[in-house]
Amino acid sequence: MATTLITGGTVVSATGRGAADVLVDGERIVALLEPGSTVLGANLAETVDTVVDATGKYVIPGGIDAHTHMSMPFGGTTASDDFETGTRAAAWGGTTTIIDFAVQKFGERVQDSLETWHKMADGQCAVDYSFHQIIGDVNAESLAALRRLPDEGITSFKLFMAYPGVFYSDDAQILRAMQTGADTGLLTMMHAENGPAIDVLVEQLLAEGKTAPYYHGIARAWQLEEEATHRAIMLADLTGAPLYVVHVSAKQAVAQLAAARDRGRNVFGETCPQYLYLSLEDNLGAAGFEGAKWVCSTPLRSRQEEHQDQVWQALRTNDLQMVSTDHCPFCMKGQKDMGLGDFSKIPNGIGTVEHRMDLMYQGVVDGRITLERWVEITSTTPARMFGLYGRKGVLAPGADADIVVYDPNGHTSIGLGKTHHMNMDHSAWEGYEIDGHVDVVLARGKVVVSDGEYRGAKGDGQFVRRDPCQYLI
Amino acid sequence: MATTLITGGTVVSATGRGAADVLVDGERIVALLEPGSTVLGANLAETVDTVVDATGKYVIPGGIDAHTHMSMPFGGTTASDDFETGTRAAAWGGTTTIIDFAVQKFGERVQDSLETWHKMADGQCAVDYSFHQIIGDVNAESLAALRRLPDEGITSFKLFMAYPGVFYSDDAQILRAMQTGADTGLLTMMHAENGPAIDVLVEQLLAEGKTAPYYHGIARAWQLEEEATHRAIMLADLTGAPLYVVHVSAKQAVAQLAAARDRGRNVFGETCPQYLYLSLEDNLGAAGFEGAKWVCSTPLRSRQEEHQDQVWQALRTNDLQMVSTDHCPFCMKGQKDMGLGDFSKIPNGIGTVEHRMDLMYQGVVDGRITLERWVEITSTTPARMFGLYGRKGVLAPGADADIVVYDPNGHTSIGLGKTHHMNMDHSAWEGYEIDGHVDVVLARGKVVVSDGEYRGAKGDGQFVRRDPCQYLI
Amino acid sequence: MATTLITGGTVVSATGRGAADVLVDGERIVALLEPGSTVLGANLAETVDTVVDATGKYVIPGGIDAHTHMSMPFGGTTASDDFETGTRAAAWGGTTTIIDFAVQKFGERVQDSLETWHKMADGQCAVDYSFHQIIGDVNAESLAALRRLPDEGITSFKLFMAYPGVFYSDDAQILRAMQTGADTGLLTMMHAENGPAIDVLVEQLLAEGKTAPYYHGIARAWQLEEEATHRAIMLADLTGAPLYVVHVSAKQAVAQLAAARDRGRNVFGETCPQYLYLSLEDNLGAAGFEGAKWVCSTPLRSRQEEHQDQVWQALRTNDLQMVSTDHCPFCMKGQKDMGLGDFSKIPNGIGTVEHRMDLMYQGVVDGRITLERWVEITSTTPARMFGLYGRKGVLAPGADADIVVYDPNGHTSIGLGKTHHMNMDHSAWEGYEIDGHVDVVLARGKVVVSDGEYRGAKGDGQFVRRDPCQYLI
Amino acid sequence: MATTLITGGTVVSATGRGAADVLVDGERIVALLEPGSTVLGANLAETVDTVVDATGKYVIPGGIDAHTHMSMPFGGTTASDDFETGTRAAAWGGTTTIIDFAVQKFGERVQDSLETWHKMADGQCAVDYSFHQIIGDVNAESLAALRRLPDEGITSFKLFMAYPGVFYSDDAQILRAMQTGADTGLLTMMHAENGPAIDVLVEQLLAEGKTAPYYHGIARAWQLEEEATHRAIMLADLTGAPLYVVHVSAKQAVAQLAAARDRGRNVFGETCPQYLYLSLEDNLGAAGFEGAKWVCSTPLRSRQEEHQDQVWQALRTNDLQMVSTDHCPFCMKGQKDMGLGDFSKIPNGIGTVEHRMDLMYQGVVDGRITLERWVEITSTTPARMFGLYGRKGVLAPGADADIVVYDPNGHTSIGLGKTHHMNMDHSAWEGYEIDGHVDVVLARGKVVVSDGEYRGAKGDGQFVRRDPCQYLI
Repeated sequence: MATTLITGGTVVSATGRGAADVLVDGERIVALLEPGSTVLGANLAETVDTVVDATGKYVIPGGIDAHTHMSMPFGGTTASDDFETGTRAAAWGGTTTIIDFAVQKFGERVQDSLETWHKMADGQCAVDYSFHQIIGDVNAESLAALRRLPDEGITSFKLFMAYPGVFYSDDAQILRAMQTGADTGLLTMMHAENGPAIDVLVEQLLAEGKTAPYYHGIARAWQLEEEATHRAIMLADLTGAPLYVVHVSAKQAVAQLAAARDRGRNVFGETCPQYLYLSLEDNLGAAGFEGAKWVCSTPLRSRQEEHQDQVWQALRTNDLQMVSTDHCPFCMKGQKDMGLGDFSKIPNGIGTVEHRMDLMYQGVVDGRITLERWVEITSTTPARMFGLYGRKGVLAPGADADIVVYDPNGHTSIGLGKTHHMNMDHSAWEGYEIDGHVDVVLARGKVVVSDGEYRGAKGDGQFVRRDPCQYLI
Repeated sequence: MATTLITGGTVVSATGRGAADVLVDGERIVALLEPGSTVLGANLAETVDTVVDATGKYVIPGGIDAHTHMSMPFGGTTASDDFETGTRAAAWGGTTTIIDFAVQKFGERVQDSLETWHKMADGQCAVDYSFHQIIGDVNAESLAALRRLPDEGITSFKLFMAYPGVFYSDDAQILRAMQTGADTGLLTMMHAENGPAIDVLVEQLLAEGKTAPYYHGIARAWQLEEEATHRAIMLADLTGAPLYVVHVSAKQAVAQLAAARDRGRNVFGETCPQYLYLSLEDNLGAAGFEGAKWVCSTPLRSRQEEHQDQVWQALRTNDLQMVSTDHCPFCMKGQKDMGLGDFSKIPNGIGTVEHRMDLMYQGVVDGRITLERWVEITSTTPARMFGLYGRKGVLAPGADADIVVYDPNGHTSIGLGKTHHMNMDHSAWEGYEIDGHVDVVLARGKVVVSDGEYRGAKGDGQFVRRDPCQYLI
Repeated sequence: MATTLITGGTVVSATGRGAADVLVDGERIVALLEPGSTVLGANLAETVDTVVDATGKYVIPGGIDAHTHMSMPFGGTTASDDFETGTRAAAWGGTTTIIDFAVQKFGERVQDSLETWHKMADGQCAVDYSFHQIIGDVNAESLAALRRLPDEGITSFKLFMAYPGVFYSDDAQILRAMQTGADTGLLTMMHAENGPAIDVLVEQLLAEGKTAPYYHGIARAWQLEEEATHRAIMLADLTGAPLYVVHVSAKQAVAQLAAARDRGRNVFGETCPQYLYLSLEDNLGAAGFEGAKWVCSTPLRSRQEEHQDQVWQALRTNDLQMVSTDHCPFCMKGQKDMGLGDFSKIPNGIGTVEHRMDLMYQGVVDGRITLERWVEITSTTPARMFGLYGRKGVLAPGADADIVVYDPNGHTSIGLGKTHHMNMDHSAWEGYEIDGHVDVVLARGKVVVSDGEYRGAKGDGQFVRRDPCQYLI
Repeated sequence: MATTLITGGTVVSATGRGAADVLVDGERIVALLEPGSTVLGANLAETVDTVVDATGKYVIPGGIDAHTHMSMPFGGTTASDDFETGTRAAAWGGTTTIIDFAVQKFGERVQDSLETWHKMADGQCAVDYSFHQIIGDVNAESLAALRRLPDEGITSFKLFMAYPGVFYSDDAQILRAMQTGADTGLLTMMHAENGPAIDVLVEQLLAEGKTAPYYHGIARAWQLEEEATHRAIMLADLTGAPLYVVHVSAKQAVAQLAAARDRGRNVFGETCPQYLYLSLEDNLGAAGFEGAKWVCSTPLRSRQEEHQDQVWQALRTNDLQMVSTDHCPFCMKGQKDMGLGDFSKIPNGIGTVEHRMDLMYQGVVDGRITLERWVEITSTTPARMFGLYGRKGVLAPGADADIVVYDPNGHTSIGLGKTHHMNMDHSAWEGYEIDGHVDVVLARGKVVVSDGEYRGAKGDGQFVRRDPCQYLI
């Protein structure tokens, strides 16, 4: 097998940084070495197949995006990135593992849905992938299927408190699923918004002629995110289930998570770049129908209410543990425009899988988070949260050689025609400038991005079985 | 220089664990290696000077006890461990770095006190050591001296809100010192108890004939710890100084720290093993004068009020970040017995430097904390908090080879005539049984403890200059 | 019309106490007078028809029990007190107004249910009565009916988050009803327990053979009261509806109410005597089937968790505003025993309407609340909360002459064969001893209880139309 | 003695309102009567000496200003209102009782200071007055004097955490005084600002040339009010002393009070009109030296931080219980101008005693508080808090006839040359317009203000002995 030495860089982990060379043999890291050490008796740089010069750069574990929806069916259409285009964009952006969602809809069998998703991804992916299981129909059969998920290498499942008639679980269903999940060692993931109440507000807003994308944000009021977050926490408390709340956007929901954690509960939350940079007023409220680009759920929150600052702070204080993208892109033409004249028909989703590492690095530059915290929230914690640590999320002997060389002196301009490889006719991040650059990406030991070129291939990425959550307190 | 290979063990870090060999060259770690890897072309086990077999054991960064008081003068006597005996006991217990306190008393010059402590420690220590600087007399001269501490390799100083007339600073002094500390990049450490109020209660209790050790705990009421903790937090908020509260014992003080952290403040807290295991009723309240063994400040708290559970929980939730010992031993004969008939004359302090790693490991066995959290709170976070990370607190190429091989299948009985090498005529931990054992200890690459023998020497330990706090949020 | 002078007593209001005579003319109070004043030129004691000597006693506004269920249909049976027996018992106990609930069940018309309740009560009552309206089927028709309630003299309605399939409203229904209520100036009352989750636990407990009354308390876990309370608060926040949570029993639910009030929300809560004195362990957990006497919802809470102390405290701090009874008695024979072998079939309810004033007075004797707070939580606040103040809840010129002379030197023994006039075959309060006594009761100016005799008559009590809530902050 | 009938008005109490006539005989209220009732057999309007027509107006208990400083010595000068001018202005504004402060300075005897204040007030006052006792020198002698205060009719004393070297008590002194106060049944009042820290900031600001009045507000940062408030709460918790915090202005201090009250502590707080209407930016920050008009301590807070809204809210939620003025006027010429070029030399104080009832009534008009809450926070609660209830704070038989007829259809323009009778050369409230008017004021039964004329006389007001606090929870 081929050997690679990444030399001269600063290895950054979740706890610190230091000069070290990383030696890769085939798909795995086999050693971390003091630069220039001769104790091993060999000048490695001369004996390895490939040398990557990381002088003046950061060497970090590849990003893990724990929340993507490739080819996701939603509202009569399908997310525009499939596993091929989406994972290739991920690789471009320094993300070397994604965890997508297999979707059991009402009336379907869980195992069938999982098989469907395996078929969609198998042989298509540029980087490694795993699945969470969405349970859209909690019943005796699906609960039994839940118990078999660990055998499939899947250790987390997701419920929805929103979308009645589609994915929605009522509280009785949530209670039963959490009980089963707790028993089985699964992590319960929750979309925490009060769907029945939202649907009333949507109906009323439309009836009042308030049909623009902006009203998507009004209908999905923060009270309904805070409410559902607290409800999920209490049901988790009752059942002993560890809980992971997806795409947290409201500062009040953050406060509920923080309070539960202060009480010692295994309650976790992710946020997404959109809730850190974008807002109800500036984006959803853009003129005409342009706001549709940023229709996602939970929605962008009000700038005036200072949710962004609170979410950044929660990332610092570990009241939120990690950042995923909820990548679920739709094109404006033929997809988003289904909701012209009716915001409720705009497919929900934003495409970010390519930009997460960059956008969060900008948080380092802006003084929002430390360099170590950047690694922690984009890679180490996702790995620990979802049972990948050891293989992913860390640069250590024995780990998969998923490695990013990041250049703090580089620059990245985001947007169509620039660094954009996602299958979309627009970018939700058009115009964002990043004071850093993803230079080299290794996926399982293979250099897939280097010198501004993509060198990987369809099928480089494999399905990864996961262990139980390694992050419980 | 000699080379050592620690092989076959499970390396545990603050974020995870995995099989890895550790290669030491002289004083430093030069490589972490995949066990059995042949890519480096050599069978290291045959070429190194020493092989340490860690099969079935944990390999962890050496413990860092960030709060000790060797030869501390207190109440007319001096702590019974000096730097020689205290650091040797530390080594026995898997602690390879201590941070002690240089003490500026009222009327003294800071630089003189530091010089005194250097003289006491120089050439005496079994393991590496550094100093925090106690400022017992905040004035223009000592504030100027504060500004020069980083040049001395000292990046933290401690103030006392207790002990009027001895170490006490009033709020004006605290404010000025925090301002200077914030300016200078120093971490402010605080003994947070309201001393003037305590002294009133002491006087009243003694006047009522309540002279037993138990009343030490009554006089130092939790309200006065909560109060001072909040006061320190607000003064830190006003000045922008990062704050580290020492020996937190009251759950209400923990709640104040948690609240400040939830607000995004750089506020930290340590606790000590005594607050996790011992109590007002069971220990301070022991029959006769025996409670004197456990007279320390802050005092042991009431078991009935469940402070212990809350402090353990705070260690899990990171509302408290680390565990030190506040090691400050006094013998019963000739020292503690100065307080017969007057608890206020009992020298304050407990000896724990030897047992911290074991006592906290028992928390892992008891399900209180995870194995990773054990490493984090005893080594990695202390290193980050006090500017040692990279050299200490982590097993990584380039780090000092401070390494402990810990045997989870071993056993340790604590007490006099058992594992006790501290210079005391009793043990505050008599009878504690630990389901694990410190097997091998390397300090700067030298095996100092192995096969139940101490192989180090006086002077092995050197003074370590520290960088600024690496843990700010 | 007849005149009555109550003389020599200490008039107690919600804010203070003082010596004053109360002059009644017909149904109303016409004057409060300084005792012995001659300015009015007449010796009133000689000219009035009746003199009530209140020397050494408290003169207070008649009690208002804002939560009763006379003849309530529940679980296939009907509460054992009808409006005649229940209101007579109320009068015996110093309660001169009740507010009962008209019950719209699923599929019924609101106005029909109200008419039914009017028919049940009309001409039967010993004391004045009003109605809240239960909405068990929120739909367009019932929402329209809500808007007409003020015309009927009804200014509050109640929804249930529990009892799916019976009274339960889902969140969409609650949202719509709160919107309508807020628009109409109605107070939304809420039974705050998560019914769907409770039903799962009930099913599971029964399946495990846990059929005793004790498990009623286990199934209705505090988490599900806290959860629903928070949910109601958030929906109220979103709609602007003032919210009144009935029968609060869990300290965690109290904390949610307190937090909302601290944020300035119009959120209110009542508790009941059973949550102040009785417990899961001591009562629900009584041997055999005896616990059935105390099956009510929300359930009695655990003594070990100290809910009682917290609820008493909340009464003091005004985090809970008032005390009602939730009077809904069932006999053990033929009613409660329907649940032998299945706790879920025990009719929910306790009979307390006769003892509320006494039980709460005992709180004064025990130092739990002040004398003024006793008047406030049993009469003045209920009047303000439900739009009766001026006519009820205060001794003032123009107010209805609903007056109780309470003897602090008297004594009351509660139980069957003692002070018990409710239509029950047992007493939930058997053995309770009260250090006080209801001596004389006037209802609309008529002495209905005096010298230990009931002097009233069926039909003394009239329906009272109510104004909107007078208690908003 | 003369009789007066106030007829046709709406009597407003802390709990509600209703039509009632008030009959006064000499100094006391002897009856409240139903208007038009003939049961008493006499047409009172024809037989009384005086009839006050209150048709269309509110009849309320006279205002009680529990925090004034007439002739207060401060910073080398003396408050410009003495007891004559100050109490006359109070009467003009509907305040019929003041509680002023006798000031024990360092080195003085408590009883001497009280005697001095008695002499200053005796025979001078337009309305009734009482005293709190300031203890500026806590020592054995003054603590003994504290124990005798109830015999003098004084049931509250005040300590200062600010003003080192003048009134300041350290924590040991506060602890002892609270212990004595708790023992003696006294209410501890606290000026809660961290004086030693403030003095450091003052010194630093002046050294930086920041000498304008605005910096008074910067030096007295909210952190130092929050800190001291929490400290006072904890010392009160430890001693069992009920605590009353004066002139609360920072929202964070409010939050500390609210938290203590949520825990069931007897902790109270007053605010003042200046903290509800005026701000750091708009007033203290006025151009040139004009800001000096509004130099008071605690200082006006930042408008941008929305303290005002939070303080109003706390008044609604009863986290603050009442409104006093902290009336302590100084003229601009010869007094405030002592601080030209050094804000620390500006005498601290604002004159508001005349306008409190009006300014708070404007809160009713503006929808900030209810009409009943207006009466409660300006009269009823002050009476209960300070042991005057029954005689003051309520319209009831036996109460002192301190009565205000307030016209909601009247208007009041505040300012020099308008409604201003305080002895000041400016008004801190210049330009404020009130949608209501103090029409008639009775003090102890005498009409002192009517038809826009002052009809009282020096010496109308008498010293009132007070009972212990009647407001404990």
